[in-house]
Amino acid sequence: MQALVYHGPNNKAWEEKPKPVLQQPTDVIVKITKTTICGTDLHILKGDVPEVVDGRILGHEGVGIVDAIGSAVTNFKQGDHVIISCISSCGKCDYCKRGMYSHCENGGWILGHLIDGTQAEYVRIPFADNSLYHIPEGSDEEALVMLSDILPTGFECGVLNGKVQPGNTVAIVGAGPIGLAALLTAQFYAPAEIIMIDPDDNRLAVAKKFGATQVINNGRENAIDKINALTNKRGVDTAIEAVGIPATFELCQSIIGAGGTIANVGVHGKSVTLHLEALWAKNITITTRLVDTVTTPMLLKTIQSKKLDAKQLITHHFKLSDIISAYDTFQNGAREKALKVILINE
Amino acid sequence: MQALVYHGPNNKAWEEKPKPVLQQPTDVIVKITKTTICGTDLHILKGDVPEVVDGRILGHEGVGIVDAIGSAVTNFKQGDHVIISCISSCGKCDYCKRGMYSHCENGGWILGHLIDGTQAEYVRIPFADNSLYHIPEGSDEEALVMLSDILPTGFECGVLNGKVQPGNTVAIVGAGPIGLAALLTAQFYAPAEIIMIDPDDNRLAVAKKFGATQVINNGRENAIDKINALTNKRGVDTAIEAVGIPATFELCQSIIGAGGTIANVGVHGKSVTLHLEALWAKNITITTRLVDTVTTPMLLKTIQSKKLDAKQLITHHFKLSDIISAYDTFQNGAREKALKVILINE
Amino acid sequence: MQALVYHGPNNKAWEEKPKPVLQQPTDVIVKITKTTICGTDLHILKGDVPEVVDGRILGHEGVGIVDAIGSAVTNFKQGDHVIISCISSCGKCDYCKRGMYSHCENGGWILGHLIDGTQAEYVRIPFADNSLYHIPEGSDEEALVMLSDILPTGFECGVLNGKVQPGNTVAIVGAGPIGLAALLTAQFYAPAEIIMIDPDDNRLAVAKKFGATQVINNGRENAIDKINALTNKRGVDTAIEAVGIPATFELCQSIIGAGGTIANVGVHGKSVTLHLEALWAKNITITTRLVDTVTTPMLLKTIQSKKLDAKQLITHHFKLSDIISAYDTFQNGAREKALKVILINE
Amino acid sequence: MQALVYHGPNNKAWEEKPKPVLQQPTDVIVKITKTTICGTDLHILKGDVPEVVDGRILGHEGVGIVDAIGSAVTNFKQGDHVIISCISSCGKCDYCKRGMYSHCENGGWILGHLIDGTQAEYVRIPFADNSLYHIPEGSDEEALVMLSDILPTGFECGVLNGKVQPGNTVAIVGAGPIGLAALLTAQFYAPAEIIMIDPDDNRLAVAKKFGATQVINNGRENAIDKINALTNKRGVDTAIEAVGIPATFELCQSIIGAGGTIANVGVHGKSVTLHLEALWAKNITITTRLVDTVTTPMLLKTIQSKKLDAKQLITHHFKLSDIISAYDTFQNGAREKALKVILINE
Repeated sequence: MQALVYHGPNNKAWEEKPKPVLQQPTDVIVKITKTTICGTDLHILKGDVPEVVDGRILGHEGVGIVDAIGSAVTNFKQGDHVIISCISSCGKCDYCKRGMYSHCENGGWILGHLIDGTQAEYVRIPFADNSLYHIPEGSDEEALVMLSDILPTGFECGVLNGKVQPGNTVAIVGAGPIGLAALLTAQFYAPAEIIMIDPDDNRLAVAKKFGATQVINNGRENAIDKINALTNKRGVDTAIEAVGIPATFELCQSIIGAGGTIANVGVHGKSVTLHLEALWAKNITITTRLVDTVTTPMLLKTIQSKKLDAKQLITHHFKLSDIISAYDTFQNGAREKALKVILINE
Repeated sequence: MQALVYHGPNNKAWEEKPKPVLQQPTDVIVKITKTTICGTDLHILKGDVPEVVDGRILGHEGVGIVDAIGSAVTNFKQGDHVIISCISSCGKCDYCKRGMYSHCENGGWILGHLIDGTQAEYVRIPFADNSLYHIPEGSDEEALVMLSDILPTGFECGVLNGKVQPGNTVAIVGAGPIGLAALLTAQFYAPAEIIMIDPDDNRLAVAKKFGATQVINNGRENAIDKINALTNKRGVDTAIEAVGIPATFELCQSIIGAGGTIANVGVHGKSVTLHLEALWAKNITITTRLVDTVTTPMLLKTIQSKKLDAKQLITHHFKLSDIISAYDTFQNGAREKALKVILINE
Repeated sequence: MQALVYHGPNNKAWEEKPKPVLQQPTDVIVKITKTTICGTDLHILKGDVPEVVDGRILGHEGVGIVDAIGSAVTNFKQGDHVIISCISSCGKCDYCKRGMYSHCENGGWILGHLIDGTQAEYVRIPFADNSLYHIPEGSDEEALVMLSDILPTGFECGVLNGKVQPGNTVAIVGAGPIGLAALLTAQFYAPAEIIMIDPDDNRLAVAKKFGATQVINNGRENAIDKINALTNKRGVDTAIEAVGIPATFELCQSIIGAGGTIANVGVHGKSVTLHLEALWAKNITITTRLVDTVTTPMLLKTIQSKKLDAKQLITHHFKLSDIISAYDTFQNGAREKALKVILINE
Repeated sequence: MQALVYHGPNNKAWEEKPKPVLQQPTDVIVKITKTTICGTDLHILKGDVPEVVDGRILGHEGVGIVDAIGSAVTNFKQGDHVIISCISSCGKCDYCKRGMYSHCENGGWILGHLIDGTQAEYVRIPFADNSLYHIPEGSDEEALVMLSDILPTGFECGVLNGKVQPGNTVAIVGAGPIGLAALLTAQFYAPAEIIMIDPDDNRLAVAKKFGATQVINNGRENAIDKINALTNKRGVDTAIEAVGIPATFELCQSIIGAGGTIANVGVHGKSVTLHLEALWAKNITITTRLVDTVTTPMLLKTIQSKKLDAKQLITHHFKLSDIISAYDTFQNGAREKALKVILINE
């Protein structure tokens, strides 16, 4: 089969690889129908994730059709249409039993990382009964690719951890795909205000369209002053960090109100300064989380019932065999006005 | 001043009464600008609430303007526009500190019950700092009358107690004003399905307009069968009882799914049969609640930010002096297609 | 092998049965070392649980040693010492993912019910990775038999559902083994008062020894009056029903305070009267639950760290082959002052 | 009257001051019977709290007898024995209604800070109905001085925020009075392990006596290695920071397990480094809190019911007029083996 293969920093190729085979009784082989590219794939390509070795097939998102099942798999059968979760969950370690699939002792984030991934014609999914989800008949499968990673990430790490509540004021720092996923799913809880902060006017325009009640271009506006004006100097109830650099985490600390929550979603490569000299008495909560995908079934229901229009996140389409071009578009997201790109395996 | 006065079962009059005066340093006198009638007022008039004595001014809802303030009142001043809460909270007993204002040792539901109420030109509000809420400038005050009782009741007793969650399936039994208030506020949490059950087609049509995803006329349809069909026999996650009779509470028990919650909102005059022989092993929760109005500030924010269109609940308008006609319309809600009626004190 | 076999109402025998064999790749065969008898076994023997068929080996509790493992089992190996959970959890259905193992679509309470149980020399355990727990080396294994059912039942259905909190007042109605398990585990949360109510003075004496702060013999005392005196007429914060008959559930309704929780643990054979005419305005919660055993790992830690002395619940010991005598003792619990009896397979 | 008066950095005097008088209808004057000294008083004396002006009477803890009441006070009368809360709560601002008394818009921590405090023969208590608590007859009043600040601080900021649960592993960094208050109240939740970390062997010995299951002298032992050994490299579930310097907050980050909570109690004067590059994917929570004293009634019940022996925290007694010596002892806590000192106004 053909697959997108990592060959060390800044080096990738669409090339022939052996079709994966069942290794464990709990495995399933999925024929990919649609996949996508994640910001994390770009990190890997820069060489920032040294666990990814030369020869690894990238990708941890996608939908497809069950091609073969292991002997202990009971939830799926050949021909089933499935969503692939970016997190593999064994369903039987302590962490899985606590709903912390991200820290599964036998799985976690392994696809396109420690084992071959989904940017390929076929992929092997370990612990399939706990790591795949049925696609209801008649669904728009493309939209469901957003359930592999981006929607549960924005929702679990940003919205749930951030304790978004009806009537509250929420700020989301970063209007990239993840920040927008948080924006879409924050609206499940009817906050009074969702303030989107980003230096890219195009992304802010998208945010407005997606439901932001206020936008701040922190390239040319003072976000702290503006938030103070919007909140009577009280600060926001929830600040969601969706960038992953010290400056944006710093901003979250400056705008959080007493009793509020800073929910970190961004992938950070450096430590940050925490202003405990100011925050120790402010009754705040800071959370971090690698997505557990424990809310995938629930998010699927919100898509099915049209409470969530996941498809809005998709801006571009490519043939899977054109994945090199797709990477180029996604890497230049600002220039290309790209959010999520769909790769179609025909 | 003029007021609507209770004179024993089935006997009420719009008549002259002395204007109320400050009795405690924590009192405020409010000039009523708009008030309404509640199902509970009808119960009182039937003689079902014996604590209400001859001569009592009825009513526990309304908005108005502060006319006089007691010496210990600090949150309000003369001329402030205010929402009157149906529950008076002293703010300093054990129950108030726990957020259970309904059980306030010095207040609770007393307006139009144990002390004179709001269906009058003026009303005395005890513990005003904790029992009135400021109306933001420029608000549509009429809509805010719905914050006195009906919206916090539907929300706290039905939606919050019922633990409505994104993606869940909710059934609301009873599409009267309170059931509809639950329907409107349930949507804060993006449930996948809200199934409204009532024997009145007009009310079901209103429910559809207000956001119900399914309606069941249990006058001519078998609600249990229909819910079973809609939920793959799993039952609903939340069943909200908004009627107050044994048959509707019985229905809630028949449709609740394993792990679900029955939230009682209805005012019951009789005991009901609880089927513990079936439910003991079903991991369900049943809740009861007299509204605490602890969510009024939050609900106000959702109205201000247009997440909630409270005004939809209002179907009729009368002059306050025409309150006898207004009662007639409200009492014949089905015939008159009446939900909430607004009484205007000009 | 030898096993205790049900032969219809009031008919049981200790007799020869084939040793169980692996049927699924997720099965384990356990050699029982210690087991016990549950109140539910007595219900079965009375004929109250018609799903139990003639020929069924009874029992759903015990500890033992892994004798054989299926090909998909990864958490256990031959020779491991294990606790058997009364609930079998597949770990991959919707209910298991939500922590509601009791409603597992493939398991749940099946041992000694729908499949052969633990009152035997060997037992087949389905979904072993999610239904067995490792016994730490050096443990007192006998005490751990209490983790199969009685401790998680008292804790999950009574204490957790009852929201026992530091400083609160808890009443437990019924001082049988389950009520006592609730009493022991309620103390994890440092309630100020635990009031035990039972008509048997011996059981109340045991309750005192186990940590009850007050006892009420409701055979000769008026429990409602006494609770009113103890709580300044406020009622209790938590009432745990651990009997399963209408009278005791009725008592819970009479003693529950505003804002309190009635946690039902008892297995009910009849419906009860729910006094909604009084309770609708009392802000109470009523819960039911079939034990999920989701807290077994946590309870094991409390036993290992000596926060919980599970062994106190054990009053009698028998050889497994003397199980007929053990049933006789357990059935006459009051006369024999029996709580839990341990059956030893030597 | 006599009082301990602040006269700028490192300058205090026991001197004559006018007896306080009622200023607002919600005030009470309390005759102090017993008071104590807090670490915060030492901070003030160093000049670290510039809001405290020359001439201010220090102290925010104590018990006493009501001497005079304002006209709007209803919960107390002259002669009542009362606990003084370190936090003054108006009971009617948004923060008070949310239970965040620490951020009360009209009060908060003002005693011995923005208004005169309790290290005096008399003190004026604003918002008395919401800021004083009745002492039950027959109580050991000395023990209840611990309810003014130290016990709610350890409990709310450390134990509640830290989500201590039965069976969990808790580390407390810092065995001073506040760390020990957290240690005592953590035991309400039956954690399996409480590991106390401090460089002072005497304090560790006290911690052992107070219920610590493990102690680590981080002056001479590697705390991280030892925690790793104790937790199988999983880290702790809860880490409570009770010192207030970067090194101890750093240690908490090194020992926290995936899914765990760092609860900050310490008063920090400097920012700290937050290792988001490691923690972003670890699903942790960090909390800060200025004590709200919202749990004081609950803590009082645990003392009354002997679940909490508050008196253990008291090591020294002085006459109130000997307060200068008492400060000397408290300031040299390590040398004097001092925890809390009681000052008696005879």
